[in-house]
Amino acid sequence: MQLIYLLTTGGTIEKAYSEKTGVVANAHSKIDRHLSLLRLPDSQVKIVQVLNKDSLEMEDSDREIILSMVKSLLSRRAPIVITHGTDTMVQTGLHLLRSLPALNSTIILTGAMTPLGFEGSDGLQNLTESLFAARVLGPGIFIVLHGQVFPADRVRKDRVLVRFVPIEQG
Amino acid sequence: MQLIYLLTTGGTIEKAYSEKTGVVANAHSKIDRHLSLLRLPDSQVKIVQVLNKDSLEMEDSDREIILSMVKSLLSRRAPIVITHGTDTMVQTGLHLLRSLPALNSTIILTGAMTPLGFEGSDGLQNLTESLFAARVLGPGIFIVLHGQVFPADRVRKDRVLVRFVPIEQG
Amino acid sequence: MQLIYLLTTGGTIEKAYSEKTGVVANAHSKIDRHLSLLRLPDSQVKIVQVLNKDSLEMEDSDREIILSMVKSLLSRRAPIVITHGTDTMVQTGLHLLRSLPALNSTIILTGAMTPLGFEGSDGLQNLTESLFAARVLGPGIFIVLHGQVFPADRVRKDRVLVRFVPIEQG
Amino acid sequence: MQLIYLLTTGGTIEKAYSEKTGVVANAHSKIDRHLSLLRLPDSQVKIVQVLNKDSLEMEDSDREIILSMVKSLLSRRAPIVITHGTDTMVQTGLHLLRSLPALNSTIILTGAMTPLGFEGSDGLQNLTESLFAARVLGPGIFIVLHGQVFPADRVRKDRVLVRFVPIEQG
Repeated sequence: MQLIYLLTTGGTIEKAYSEKTGVVANAHSKIDRHLSLLRLPDSQVKIVQVLNKDSLEMEDSDREIILSMVKSLLSRRAPIVITHGTDTMVQTGLHLLRSLPALNSTIILTGAMTPLGFEGSDGLQNLTESLFAARVLGPGIFIVLHGQVFPADRVRKDRVLVRFVPIEQG
Repeated sequence: MQLIYLLTTGGTIEKAYSEKTGVVANAHSKIDRHLSLLRLPDSQVKIVQVLNKDSLEMEDSDREIILSMVKSLLSRRAPIVITHGTDTMVQTGLHLLRSLPALNSTIILTGAMTPLGFEGSDGLQNLTESLFAARVLGPGIFIVLHGQVFPADRVRKDRVLVRFVPIEQG
Repeated sequence: MQLIYLLTTGGTIEKAYSEKTGVVANAHSKIDRHLSLLRLPDSQVKIVQVLNKDSLEMEDSDREIILSMVKSLLSRRAPIVITHGTDTMVQTGLHLLRSLPALNSTIILTGAMTPLGFEGSDGLQNLTESLFAARVLGPGIFIVLHGQVFPADRVRKDRVLVRFVPIEQG
Repeated sequence: MQLIYLLTTGGTIEKAYSEKTGVVANAHSKIDRHLSLLRLPDSQVKIVQVLNKDSLEMEDSDREIILSMVKSLLSRRAPIVITHGTDTMVQTGLHLLRSLPALNSTIILTGAMTPLGFEGSDGLQNLTESLFAARVLGPGIFIVLHGQVFPADRVRKDRVLVRFVPIEQG
């Protein structure tokens, strides 16, 4: 049985439509309901709700909370998948990368352009890919979505194309 | 073959999520794609895109456009279904009611609390019911959704319950 | 609050795919799960599981069981929707029609060509229409599906077209 | 742009329900419709329809056809995903393994327990995982589904559990 930690922090992937306001926002975590659509007979996915924020509203203190949770889990020797808003996903990835220089675990950041359960959503695809990547990729911090794997320091979100694209390492 | 006119005016039922802005709004009409999920072997549904507005932004002039389109179709002797935002659906229904005193056709107003294609949407249910009601109800102006039929002058939207409720006729 | 009885007897609408046999068959009733997708705020739908059979395997004794259940519910003065296999739906409808000459209630028979939950299924549409018809049609026995209403003695299934078509009353 | 060949051979993943016969069988390939639900902005997936058979009906000659197609594509230096019935997927995998001793490409076999588009289907998950695995796994022949990766010679289908389980290498 492969243990995987799934840390949720909010972002579009978990946003919901409010019938009272007509707004799409992070209200309650809903990833468990969608995770249950996947068949993972020899994986044990433990969901940890860390935050529930639009990533544009994340501050340094939020990234410290995420880092702190990741640190506390590293001793379990299990891969970690973090769902996160796409707008500052790279920023959080870089923060983890700088703060965990001797990392020996696999950490995957993922998210979605359209919320889980909305037509045309990429959420379940990205969750599927990330849980798979968590098992097959080696140590490091990666952004995984849309069939792609990016090291956290070689990627940026292209807001016009609404996807992630590689950048040359500085 | 039963001819039915389906007039679209926007509203939540046809709203879509924008990946660039994160906002749910009326952009392009999408009812044809969802209508194609229904089996209506002896109905011919003609879609007429009249407006594409959040009903809170509708003005008197918009209601005149809807009324004008309805009037132009009455001679076809076919029932008319109008998809509309729920917030001012009753207002539009009352305007049609006052403006068409000798109405001999069936006119159905419907909409949705959650857009078509979003999880938990009531849009396809309401569209199904309205197209059915258009064939079996007699002349009059009705609001049809959630398994309910309301004469246009005996209903209001309850924004707390997020549904329509009957009112006593004044 | 409108009370509606929903009697299930099996048929394609409730069939499920077996991963062990690769066969689609009536195993467990699944209509409650799909019914919960509909918003019916002022309806109370009571599900009564009567049978769970492919309608080609129904015998006279099965139709007696259905008739008996219908008779026992008539005093409740609530409309009745019966989900049923399409192949012998008309036969059951005619049996009810002959056996209930003084019927003063609305009885709707419905079903599906493709099981609920399979892509392209007409099941939820037909269930939606039938529950709506149960509230708006007058007394009689009707087959309701695909946007159509047929008196039970004026309809046949066209197996080539995979739909119901009207017949002249004999 | 990553080129991936997707060879379809039939199996449950591509089966469809026939409204005329009530049987689930391999009729027309339908993987393209479901593939289009995935966002793969830097992948080019070329679908090659090789066979369309229940894998229990596959004969040696069918496996030769699959092998022949694989051989003809190896020079393209692109990974290959093969959709296949689960009952004899391992047999085909072993045939490829024995016939391609100097394999330097990644070949993934996948399938589903429930057809694509049926409720509860594992088809899209397995397709997602396999296309991802095709990009990140090294050379070899693997069975990928349900979050798992098995070398073709270390796996068997457990028909009671309806999943694949590892076997010790002989």
